[in-house]
Amino acid sequence: MARLNVILFGLGRMGQLYLRLFHTALAPHARILAVADPHTANLDRAAADYEIPHAFADPLDALRLPDADAVLIASPTSTHVQLIEAAADRGLPIFCEKPLALTREEHVAALHAVRRAGVPLQVGFMRRFDPAYRRAFELIAGGEIGKPILFKAVGRDPTCPPPRFADPRKSGGLILDMGIHDFDLARWLMGSEVERVSAEGGLLACPELAEVGDIDVAVVNLRFTDGAVGNVDVGRAAVYGYDIFTEVLGTEGSVRVGALRRAPLLHMTRRGAVRELVASFTERFAAAYEAQLVHFIECVRSGRCPEVGGEDALRAFEIGWAATRALDQGQPVRVSPAEIDTTL
Amino acid sequence: MARLNVILFGLGRMGQLYLRLFHTALAPHARILAVADPHTANLDRAAADYEIPHAFADPLDALRLPDADAVLIASPTSTHVQLIEAAADRGLPIFCEKPLALTREEHVAALHAVRRAGVPLQVGFMRRFDPAYRRAFELIAGGEIGKPILFKAVGRDPTCPPPRFADPRKSGGLILDMGIHDFDLARWLMGSEVERVSAEGGLLACPELAEVGDIDVAVVNLRFTDGAVGNVDVGRAAVYGYDIFTEVLGTEGSVRVGALRRAPLLHMTRRGAVRELVASFTERFAAAYEAQLVHFIECVRSGRCPEVGGEDALRAFEIGWAATRALDQGQPVRVSPAEIDTTL
Amino acid sequence: MARLNVILFGLGRMGQLYLRLFHTALAPHARILAVADPHTANLDRAAADYEIPHAFADPLDALRLPDADAVLIASPTSTHVQLIEAAADRGLPIFCEKPLALTREEHVAALHAVRRAGVPLQVGFMRRFDPAYRRAFELIAGGEIGKPILFKAVGRDPTCPPPRFADPRKSGGLILDMGIHDFDLARWLMGSEVERVSAEGGLLACPELAEVGDIDVAVVNLRFTDGAVGNVDVGRAAVYGYDIFTEVLGTEGSVRVGALRRAPLLHMTRRGAVRELVASFTERFAAAYEAQLVHFIECVRSGRCPEVGGEDALRAFEIGWAATRALDQGQPVRVSPAEIDTTL
Amino acid sequence: MARLNVILFGLGRMGQLYLRLFHTALAPHARILAVADPHTANLDRAAADYEIPHAFADPLDALRLPDADAVLIASPTSTHVQLIEAAADRGLPIFCEKPLALTREEHVAALHAVRRAGVPLQVGFMRRFDPAYRRAFELIAGGEIGKPILFKAVGRDPTCPPPRFADPRKSGGLILDMGIHDFDLARWLMGSEVERVSAEGGLLACPELAEVGDIDVAVVNLRFTDGAVGNVDVGRAAVYGYDIFTEVLGTEGSVRVGALRRAPLLHMTRRGAVRELVASFTERFAAAYEAQLVHFIECVRSGRCPEVGGEDALRAFEIGWAATRALDQGQPVRVSPAEIDTTL
Repeated sequence: MARLNVILFGLGRMGQLYLRLFHTALAPHARILAVADPHTANLDRAAADYEIPHAFADPLDALRLPDADAVLIASPTSTHVQLIEAAADRGLPIFCEKPLALTREEHVAALHAVRRAGVPLQVGFMRRFDPAYRRAFELIAGGEIGKPILFKAVGRDPTCPPPRFADPRKSGGLILDMGIHDFDLARWLMGSEVERVSAEGGLLACPELAEVGDIDVAVVNLRFTDGAVGNVDVGRAAVYGYDIFTEVLGTEGSVRVGALRRAPLLHMTRRGAVRELVASFTERFAAAYEAQLVHFIECVRSGRCPEVGGEDALRAFEIGWAATRALDQGQPVRVSPAEIDTTL
Repeated sequence: MARLNVILFGLGRMGQLYLRLFHTALAPHARILAVADPHTANLDRAAADYEIPHAFADPLDALRLPDADAVLIASPTSTHVQLIEAAADRGLPIFCEKPLALTREEHVAALHAVRRAGVPLQVGFMRRFDPAYRRAFELIAGGEIGKPILFKAVGRDPTCPPPRFADPRKSGGLILDMGIHDFDLARWLMGSEVERVSAEGGLLACPELAEVGDIDVAVVNLRFTDGAVGNVDVGRAAVYGYDIFTEVLGTEGSVRVGALRRAPLLHMTRRGAVRELVASFTERFAAAYEAQLVHFIECVRSGRCPEVGGEDALRAFEIGWAATRALDQGQPVRVSPAEIDTTL
Repeated sequence: MARLNVILFGLGRMGQLYLRLFHTALAPHARILAVADPHTANLDRAAADYEIPHAFADPLDALRLPDADAVLIASPTSTHVQLIEAAADRGLPIFCEKPLALTREEHVAALHAVRRAGVPLQVGFMRRFDPAYRRAFELIAGGEIGKPILFKAVGRDPTCPPPRFADPRKSGGLILDMGIHDFDLARWLMGSEVERVSAEGGLLACPELAEVGDIDVAVVNLRFTDGAVGNVDVGRAAVYGYDIFTEVLGTEGSVRVGALRRAPLLHMTRRGAVRELVASFTERFAAAYEAQLVHFIECVRSGRCPEVGGEDALRAFEIGWAATRALDQGQPVRVSPAEIDTTL
Repeated sequence: MARLNVILFGLGRMGQLYLRLFHTALAPHARILAVADPHTANLDRAAADYEIPHAFADPLDALRLPDADAVLIASPTSTHVQLIEAAADRGLPIFCEKPLALTREEHVAALHAVRRAGVPLQVGFMRRFDPAYRRAFELIAGGEIGKPILFKAVGRDPTCPPPRFADPRKSGGLILDMGIHDFDLARWLMGSEVERVSAEGGLLACPELAEVGDIDVAVVNLRFTDGAVGNVDVGRAAVYGYDIFTEVLGTEGSVRVGALRRAPLLHMTRRGAVRELVASFTERFAAAYEAQLVHFIECVRSGRCPEVGGEDALRAFEIGWAATRALDQGQPVRVSPAEIDTTL
């Protein structure tokens, strides 16, 4: 079967990661037909590493290639919606890195564009493709913990980011930036929507973030429409490692997903037993990043709808956005879901 | 050195536990001089198990014994303050099981009584004497995790309690009943006071508690006076076991205390690897219950002040009380500390 | 019920441990009527710590006390058999610390003495009373791992002992001294006798033991009469802690017992996740030491036969003795069980 | 840089695995120029899955391709040496799956052939490329555990193999088949050669293997030339999973490598806490299989010598062969290293 031709937008950190995956794990199934990035250095580097038929500074030029089968958007968040709309106009299936956008309006615009064009849209909530999270979902869906009543999540990065990356105008702020995966997992694993949030937070470990007005630690309480409750804590500076932990407690048991150990290795000395810890999201979720692209390619080939799409992106965003406002206001905030025009 | 003569009030579950400890671990240092309990059956049972010089239905009769050195109050919460006042009048050092009382006024009355009499008062926050928690405190106090910025706690019982035990008029309600130890740990380990709380909760696993108006699961966000934040989740029905977990995240690391495994035993079959889990607070905190009494006896002997006293009881209560109101009101609530007359 | 009067022989490390247990955990059930130790300092220290009715330099004097109900032998190994014979003559139930003796002949003499006198003899294989090992036994006996086919054990002390303690003339040598508990567990958990052993070993970590001619590490292969196989490794100097691990692999699964973590506490920093480890046998087996004495007292009271007796001591000794010879000879050695006169 | 052209011999289980790796992880660096397998069905299946320029029933035909850069031998063990010799004659770098051969003579013949031809030979001891084992090696080499004194290893498959696979004439018998990786790790991690072995073993779980005369469980004691000791247990039927564990104990600590958990997921119910376990070598060592080929390709490109070569294969084989004889003879057996002609 012929390999799918994919256009990749953006050659930043995530773009590089996807580029490598297309030349390794995905090589039998798809290939990068073109890359588009305004920075010539990025294009040169990609060309040095891999044979890529086309390279463009302007993404819209790439979209004119007649033999493109799909697009993968890994450019800055601010460009996502415009690229989604342009790709949808071309009738191309779209994979877009998270977050889809930083406003509700943009999310809705993107959703309407793909609905109008009838093209599939997958969003980069890669955790849903992590083997442990998939197994957790199966156990919960199979009734192995009874009715879910409590959702807990921890999401912590090991180092303070540079202020320019953590600038809330680009990142959406700590709660959205770090928590959006957790809010997506909350909806997926609990099988219920979040209807109210409240939050506490502060700037305690990364003083340099004061200049962009962000915080570095927060706790967010969740209330689900079915009465279940939850809590998510997110933080920028857990110096020990990249710590992602999720629990769903049900009436018949609990499922926990959390990977802290870097390797199945224990070093014991007079000072005790030491384990080295996972340091980054690329280390923790290497298999998930690969699996989400495999899923996307399969969906494109088969015409199936991706398991995690634009509406999931919107709903997770809305939770994070409400939690951010709840923190600002010192009050619980209702999550009011935007309406999507389902007649499109 | 002569053994201390202790009067024990109350022979319910906790009273029985303390009675056994005085006849085993504490035997070299102290003895139960008298037990007092209105239920004759309890007195008979105690007499059958151990040689106890005196037994009374009326606690005030016990207080008349001239050679008493200290009292241990394990009777129902509603009787605590009256007994504290009576023992203080007699000039006797007091150990009182938690909670001290169910109102702020009663806490203050008890504190004033012991201050007036100049007697030591220790409150049954036994977790502070658990070896793992003590080590956690040492690590934090020794700067091993830098400045604490986030407090996390889980407190879950394995079974729905009978409605009469969970009746909020007797227990203070889920958040106070289950969370008071966590609120005490929060203050102790973080080295800062809680100034604001918010909560979500519901009745999801123990429908029979509807008759007494309690809930069975809650998440409580905390804000500390130094800007740190926290979250505590408490629940009645974690069917897998008795799950007490605490974490303090600091700018230089994290300390976690949590004991789920019943024994250092792993059973592996075709179905996977199975560990049996801790089932009860007496199993998890057996060493702590013993150590807190050893501490009390040492304080009585040496005239030192117990490490955890009446003001700790008051402050932990106030957090739980505020969280309970926060849940009722659907709003964050400030924790406003009651004033204690320090001139007494 | 009146408390049992026990005579304690020996106030070394183990004697002190048992003395404390009789004044704490065992206080409701038994008391130390007399202690006997040739060292006046030991007697004085015991008298300072506890009220003990009688103290003797000569153990035979203690045996003359008319109201003694049982004896506990914790004196040096070389004195065990003589004291067992004397106590048996007096018709007293006997608890004897391991090893019973350092020769097969002495073991048999002790067994014959207690059989002749018809008194119960329990040997200090306390691991059989550890909650995790008991649960392992139950799982195996209940068929939860099918037919046992492989026995694995690790037995490691954290520090090189002083040469005088490790002197093979007193200790029996590394394999017997460290491995005798493992050989007892092998028989108990596998439900089969060891019929052949082979060994490798050396002096690699504790050069000072060369002066007494001992080694500090060894691996011992076992062959059981039912065809199952096994391996035990023992070592003097696992600097990270006191490491006791046991596995039984069966046709339907595996059971593993091993406790390395000192406390349910995790400390995570930039250097990784650190756990402090168990440092000594008294820490690891505190509950087991207590439980074995409770068992002995119950057996004395009820006339039941102790679960672990003189023949168990003999059989475990024979395995260790054979393994020691196997190492010396560089050849597998058959374990030939001594005959016991069952007509006594 | 042009991709290396590799000829792949053998499309059995391992050949399929390598074929997939060349079309995914290794795609940027190398490609399969030709496959050779006597079974047409295997060739057809490979052609259906991947675009492969050439396919041959006869491996010698493949070797005639002028643009081949290297060969990868994954055909049955009995064909290895002949193919090594033929590839060496062609001057091609060789990767050969383990074991290289089932006799010492064949090993030596293969070594002499590659030495004569001056071509690199890498052997498929993939564990050396597993991230955890590499880290263990670094820690040991860096002195983090002092001087190694004890080597421990567990190697267990989860299911009884079909008798035809376990036939000792094809597999070398249990100890060689399962233990060869452990013997290689022993040499590599201990930094010392094995000079003497002894063994016990039996057929206890897989009665159907009686027909080919193999056993299913064994324990092997090791003695190293520097005086260190060791033990390896290997088994066919650990029903709970694929269990590979290795420890090196040194004078200053211990390093342990062992991965039993399939995923970082914990499922807790009334029955306890359950973890699913690793089921196969492809699951456990997926990263290692990839990394060893990356290493081979790098060596071919750079002219460097592979880290694990023919002499390693010979030495590991000799240990396993000696252990197999030790079991047969019921005696310790010296490992006598074959001489290699170093003048070639």
